[in-house]
Amino acid sequence: MGKLLIVGTLAFDAIESPFGKTDKILGGAATFIGLAASHFNVKSAIVSVVGDDFPDEYLNLLAKRNIDLSGVEVVNGGKTFFWSGKYHNDLNTRDTLATELNTLAEFNPVVPEEFKEPDVVMLGNLDPTIQQSVIDQLTTRPKLIVLDTMNFWMDNTLDALLSVIKNVDVLTINDEEARQLTQEHSLVRAAAKIHNMGPKYVVIKKGEHGALLFQDTNVFFAPALPLEEVFDPTGAGDTFAGGFSGYLASTKNNSFENLKNAVIHGSNLASFCVEKFGTERMQNLSKEEIEQRLTEFSSLTQFNIELQS
Amino acid sequence: MGKLLIVGTLAFDAIESPFGKTDKILGGAATFIGLAASHFNVKSAIVSVVGDDFPDEYLNLLAKRNIDLSGVEVVNGGKTFFWSGKYHNDLNTRDTLATELNTLAEFNPVVPEEFKEPDVVMLGNLDPTIQQSVIDQLTTRPKLIVLDTMNFWMDNTLDALLSVIKNVDVLTINDEEARQLTQEHSLVRAAAKIHNMGPKYVVIKKGEHGALLFQDTNVFFAPALPLEEVFDPTGAGDTFAGGFSGYLASTKNNSFENLKNAVIHGSNLASFCVEKFGTERMQNLSKEEIEQRLTEFSSLTQFNIELQS
Repeated sequence: MGKLLIVGTLAFDAIESPFGKTDKILGGAATFIGLAASHFNVKSAIVSVVGDDFPDEYLNLLAKRNIDLSGVEVVNGGKTFFWSGKYHNDLNTRDTLATELNTLAEFNPVVPEEFKEPDVVMLGNLDPTIQQSVIDQLTTRPKLIVLDTMNFWMDNTLDALLSVIKNVDVLTINDEEARQLTQEHSLVRAAAKIHNMGPKYVVIKKGEHGALLFQDTNVFFAPALPLEEVFDPTGAGDTFAGGFSGYLASTKNNSFENLKNAVIHGSNLASFCVEKFGTERMQNLSKEEIEQRLTEFSSLTQFNIELQS
Repeated sequence: MGKLLIVGTLAFDAIESPFGKTDKILGGAATFIGLAASHFNVKSAIVSVVGDDFPDEYLNLLAKRNIDLSGVEVVNGGKTFFWSGKYHNDLNTRDTLATELNTLAEFNPVVPEEFKEPDVVMLGNLDPTIQQSVIDQLTTRPKLIVLDTMNFWMDNTLDALLSVIKNVDVLTINDEEARQLTQEHSLVRAAAKIHNMGPKYVVIKKGEHGALLFQDTNVFFAPALPLEEVFDPTGAGDTFAGGFSGYLASTKNNSFENLKNAVIHGSNLASFCVEKFGTERMQNLSKEEIEQRLTEFSSLTQFNIELQS
């Protein structure tokens, strides 16, 4: 069984989409990563922080998925990180209505002893100084460190972000953010520049248009599954990251061929995430459903042209 | 050897892109379709019209590719169709600067006797009444009729367009146009509605984001090859259509499995088209380059996950 160390937010989300709106529901990068990774043969731990307003019900939900929560600090009298957003009609763009850091503002992550030598580290989207602090606490360099980030950190803490990017093996980032980070419109060129920043592998997420995996001149592309309806994209990127890192922690094989499979597994799980609000779909997802959709991914992309060379 | 009947424009194009601008150069849907299809084992014929300002050099270029031009009417004293456009910085959007129909305005297509029983008909993007007239001249119903169109005909001649769409087997259309035609944002739902309009197969082209092939509940996706630089997208959709229909005419196999291959061949050829202005890249394209890039398409998309079911 592989060991996966996750750092990221546990949060309350309030979401508006063309299909409705929610009250404060369970959200956060670490939540989606943990739920997605739990479908693989891994022992995961989440390093995060919440206030004492965070329901036991949410923590139990994660604990039941074989996720170690000893690295989750509960701040007495503190409030949990809160994010609120409203999606536009095309669901590709959104406005952030509120971001309340609360307990996250003063968070000092502590990696549990048992997870200081993980197989894979998944640094979910949050402050790069927190991501670096998690790396610094490891006793041996793990086989693979994956970092997810977003434009907010490029805008506000670029130096710290570039510093931690140097130390990771895989950067997962969306297409517009890759362009912002590198000042290159071509994603091929953007990926080449990111390689030069440190990461051996670059994953560029294009939402409904799929995801690209780069390793120098090797490129792999996984489409998003065409869906009748995308209900709520919140957490899709984190779910991708959880499927990606969870699969790699369970297989302990970091070849390009196996990273291709990890991209497919991540895309597959993300395709479920967007079907309902928040974590709802991810909480009720069977092995059979996952396998069935993997076969759909396969028939969606696999062809058999006779190549003469 | 398969027979492919092509109707479409032969044109002068003047193009501005972030990389430069051209004078009047060779363009037109039938030009790009014919050049692309010429890479397969087919005898093609173009049905079109030009003025006597259209250089013999351009006609010779097509004739040398084994394309029958007896269906190309040359109007003495007439002027050839002219299109001018300017691409924005992202190359995904463009402004049309000029559209001069000229001889195209009064065009009555005449299908050469030898091509009244083709294997495949490729109805390139032009007035749907011209597309229908070509179908009406056929002596037997061909195995496959493919129609390409664009938003201009939806805006201006929707009834005529819907009428000819009823009579075709494959509609190729871009994503925004599919949404406009069906009033459905989801491409899965848009394809289902288009099936109900007549076509058994629907190809939705997403430019740099690839192309989707639908046949009822069967879906196949071909990515666009990630390129360092897209120079000029003009003709990419027509080149796709030419590769798609040319491959199908040469193989005479209209199964879903073979249409998947046709989508890959179309995408492969389109990936070359955008590398230079106009037809420049398509005029100097070797069998070896095409084969080499097909192997890139294969490694870009093929994976090997063990499926349990």
